[in-house]
Amino acid sequence: MATLENHYRDLFDIEFTIERNKLWMLQTRVGKRTAGAAFRIATQLVDQGLIDIDEAVARVTGDQLAQLMFPRFDAGEDAKQIAKGMNASPGAAVGKAVFDSDRAEEMANNGEAVILVRRETNPDDLNGMIAAQGILTSRGGKTSHAAVVARGMGKTCVCGAEEIDVDLKGRKFTARGGAVVEEGDVISIDGTSGVVYLGEVPVQPSEVVEYFEGKIDATSDNASDLVKAVHRVMERADEKRILRVRANSDTPEDSERARRFGAEGIGLCRTEHMFLGERRQFVEDLILAEGDAEREAALQALLPLQREDFVGIFTAMDGLPVTVRLIDPPLHEFLPDLTELTSAIAVKEATGEPVDEHDRVLLAAVQRMHEQNPMLGLRGVRLGLVIPGLFDLQVRAIAEAAAQVKAAGLNPRPEIMVPLVGAVQELEIVRDETLAILADVKAETGQDVPTLIGTMIEVPRAAVTAGQIAEAAEFFSFGTNDLTQMGWGFSRDDVEAAFFSRYLELGIFGVSPFESLDQEGVGRLVRIATEEGRKTRPDLHIGVCGEHGGDPDSIHFFAEVGLDYVSCSPFRVPVARLEAGRAAMAGVGSDSR
Amino acid sequence: MATLENHYRDLFDIEFTIERNKLWMLQTRVGKRTAGAAFRIATQLVDQGLIDIDEAVARVTGDQLAQLMFPRFDAGEDAKQIAKGMNASPGAAVGKAVFDSDRAEEMANNGEAVILVRRETNPDDLNGMIAAQGILTSRGGKTSHAAVVARGMGKTCVCGAEEIDVDLKGRKFTARGGAVVEEGDVISIDGTSGVVYLGEVPVQPSEVVEYFEGKIDATSDNASDLVKAVHRVMERADEKRILRVRANSDTPEDSERARRFGAEGIGLCRTEHMFLGERRQFVEDLILAEGDAEREAALQALLPLQREDFVGIFTAMDGLPVTVRLIDPPLHEFLPDLTELTSAIAVKEATGEPVDEHDRVLLAAVQRMHEQNPMLGLRGVRLGLVIPGLFDLQVRAIAEAAAQVKAAGLNPRPEIMVPLVGAVQELEIVRDETLAILADVKAETGQDVPTLIGTMIEVPRAAVTAGQIAEAAEFFSFGTNDLTQMGWGFSRDDVEAAFFSRYLELGIFGVSPFESLDQEGVGRLVRIATEEGRKTRPDLHIGVCGEHGGDPDSIHFFAEVGLDYVSCSPFRVPVARLEAGRAAMAGVGSDSR
Repeated sequence: MATLENHYRDLFDIEFTIERNKLWMLQTRVGKRTAGAAFRIATQLVDQGLIDIDEAVARVTGDQLAQLMFPRFDAGEDAKQIAKGMNASPGAAVGKAVFDSDRAEEMANNGEAVILVRRETNPDDLNGMIAAQGILTSRGGKTSHAAVVARGMGKTCVCGAEEIDVDLKGRKFTARGGAVVEEGDVISIDGTSGVVYLGEVPVQPSEVVEYFEGKIDATSDNASDLVKAVHRVMERADEKRILRVRANSDTPEDSERARRFGAEGIGLCRTEHMFLGERRQFVEDLILAEGDAEREAALQALLPLQREDFVGIFTAMDGLPVTVRLIDPPLHEFLPDLTELTSAIAVKEATGEPVDEHDRVLLAAVQRMHEQNPMLGLRGVRLGLVIPGLFDLQVRAIAEAAAQVKAAGLNPRPEIMVPLVGAVQELEIVRDETLAILADVKAETGQDVPTLIGTMIEVPRAAVTAGQIAEAAEFFSFGTNDLTQMGWGFSRDDVEAAFFSRYLELGIFGVSPFESLDQEGVGRLVRIATEEGRKTRPDLHIGVCGEHGGDPDSIHFFAEVGLDYVSCSPFRVPVARLEAGRAAMAGVGSDSR
Repeated sequence: MATLENHYRDLFDIEFTIERNKLWMLQTRVGKRTAGAAFRIATQLVDQGLIDIDEAVARVTGDQLAQLMFPRFDAGEDAKQIAKGMNASPGAAVGKAVFDSDRAEEMANNGEAVILVRRETNPDDLNGMIAAQGILTSRGGKTSHAAVVARGMGKTCVCGAEEIDVDLKGRKFTARGGAVVEEGDVISIDGTSGVVYLGEVPVQPSEVVEYFEGKIDATSDNASDLVKAVHRVMERADEKRILRVRANSDTPEDSERARRFGAEGIGLCRTEHMFLGERRQFVEDLILAEGDAEREAALQALLPLQREDFVGIFTAMDGLPVTVRLIDPPLHEFLPDLTELTSAIAVKEATGEPVDEHDRVLLAAVQRMHEQNPMLGLRGVRLGLVIPGLFDLQVRAIAEAAAQVKAAGLNPRPEIMVPLVGAVQELEIVRDETLAILADVKAETGQDVPTLIGTMIEVPRAAVTAGQIAEAAEFFSFGTNDLTQMGWGFSRDDVEAAFFSRYLELGIFGVSPFESLDQEGVGRLVRIATEEGRKTRPDLHIGVCGEHGGDPDSIHFFAEVGLDYVSCSPFRVPVARLEAGRAAMAGVGSDSR
């Protein structure tokens, strides 16, 4: 056995038999292993001198690392496993079994944690899937509706657990061993292993996450073999990788975590939340403003609040770049829902109840701003060009915050990113206004904060005219979510639940293009924009801030195309660091397997 | 003067003076002329031997021809011209002046023809603009909101008529000459000349249209000089052009007109209307069907009706190709509006009125099928892949109709076009099902009708993967409306009224990309798809069926890229024929000026 493993330089499954006292080796193949074992084995082989550290890095994957970062069930001897299905979407979820989506929603609204149990799901189950902690089905594989939608939501899912017999009318399921689970009984489902437990299994935090958080020192003797192995692999991946890794983060707390996880900047700081909560009133004032004075007052009220938001983020990211995206969603998202408001007013009128005059004014505004296709409407840079002072408010808040942080002795590195640009002319206008405000704030504060101005590339037209757009942009950041939506002509919210499962069954795509970048189609737009953008401006800084920035296969593609960085959610930063390292070692054409 | 005109071979404005009995020529320039004069002068110059017929064709434009095809006011001596503004959107409109958009909508709903009069319009006026026969504003130029939106709607508009003083509160306007028009007073506006008349001016049909309709014989002595000139120019343009011209038509009547106007086929026969009217019930049955039998019954009920539709169209287009687009819009468009139905049921519930059970079932279906962004949802080929039997019904109706028409001794030439394809796999599946049905119908009827199968190229991903898609497509037809919408990431319904005027003012585009193809961005996608589609399949037949197929500048672009045909509305067919001829003579890089 040692001979074989030494020859193949890996852990091997070896089949043997002993016949009449003679040992026969029957066959051998690379041994299967858990994610944790993969890391431990790889580094042990290094210690044994069988492989070098680069090969160890090549032998583990970002997907394995991601698995190690989910909380795990601490399933001791008492844990009662009642079934096993497919590990469709990772994580550990505990809740009361519910067999109907409306009921799931109702119970969740009452603050109860529920697991939605169905034979299979369909688009009608969407509300229940949103409400549940996790989803368990008895039918369907990894491309079933439940699996596809759960992964899209980042929700734990076990599917195709054929050992359970779901009785929807009786609101219960029976496991092969005879265990019966009725509505309200607590179950625990493990989306990483596919195991279903009866009752509540305690959840244990991931030690790998604790290591990234800095709570475990990988160099101390107390560190586990797993943590030590992960540490060694990550160190080497960081040394080798060319692609930088940033995080998508909107708050100081997330930014700090991203930094602990190794992020080298913020690649996408959304600003929508800076208009929400108690500030929603100011947005309403802005929309309903009659005349410049009222509009200006609403904007002025927001300025100090948003400045403080940015101070927090720039402070957390001292010395590292922070790409701030100016407001993107249509303003009516900050107003009440058309159908609800129309219905509420109609009911009041029908029953003779007085209707608040403000509600009528609001309804008129909601009707006026209603859009057939909000994703393709008045949003992004269009808002900035149509609503006087809106982008100016944000730019001033950024500039003043940066000046304040710099005056406090830190090193803020803001980058202002204009969303949804389709034509260079849009960007030129915003850039010129932005430069004027930056100059004003510099004069007012005496602080000189170098600030880049760039744009998202998320509209197909921007990709095919990138050579022009680069004339006005110091950086590009691919918004691959929107680029996928507009490139394919489908909106994720509408299509993932409606027909993605069918498309995967039919083989139209092998994996959802929202999970892993569609390299042939959307990827071609990324290639065109990168090549032509750099032709115009050789030092153009290019990254990606869609969710694909944290997907292993996509990362290899971005490395191959020659982007400067990927940006992903803080929890995916280690995955991206590892895959960026693997991509650098494997060279062009590598993938994440 | 003859010397000058002979030298320049054109009609010239010549300024002269006589001083002390001596004639001084001061300056000269190409003389301005009306659209009709342009045609007459061009052919007269041919008759005088100053230019040849090709140059005559080059000297007139499709825009001029289009102007000649609108009905004109027969403004005799009695017609009282009270103002003149800019000719923002052509046509002749008569109606009662109204100064408020809600009031315009109200009056129009009562069956009255109205002209909306405003100082300038804004997005709040959309309902009034839709309701009105025409729009008159006292401010703003050809890129003003009123002008842009009216052109988008194909509605007559005179803008920037500064001679009138609009008093919105007083619901009247005063013309410079003192004429006062109050709400309800009839006015006539000429969008071709910009002239505003008091009272109702009789409208005269276009003699050029009557010529194309075959009601005037251009070779008879009775024909006017204009008709003779148009005839000569069109004959030459037809001889020279390489680009074929088809029409977009959904009915036998429109198809017959298109044929009279010179269409060489139908490039886009939409099939949505074949599910409307009394047939809407079957669509509702299809959506609410429980089980295969109910769904199949709904589809079977539609089959004979749709077959008859196609028989009519194939008969009208005997011997010419008819490209039928399978159903494209989302099915919820055939159901009631979510907000209205929700509100109606809520009101009934609140007032204790009984709610029809069917309405509840319908509301549940409407809610289930509601989409955030219907343009980016379950439509086109996706419907065909998700709803069993839907495309099959349509293909069978087409095939049976073609067999029936062929059996009657005619020559039907159907082409089946799959909408919204983004990936070759989608098309392959539909193609295989279609081929099976065509074979079945051939076996059943004994009629062999050659039928092409192809696809729209309207999703950006389809354009950049056209090399693959051409493996499964016998033809491409660019749906440049959707390609513009998805390429730019904006939906026409939402953005034209909301911010296009602002974008034109800011110079972000010089002309709406829905009026004239955005050659740099969307046009690049057209180029890529054409080149790479032909690389895969050299005999790939390629056309365009978006509205750009009737736009002069766009036609020159399509000619240059090497498309086989353009398809446009029947009324634009002569314009397209003319511009296609001009493009062929001018060669590459020509434009429509």
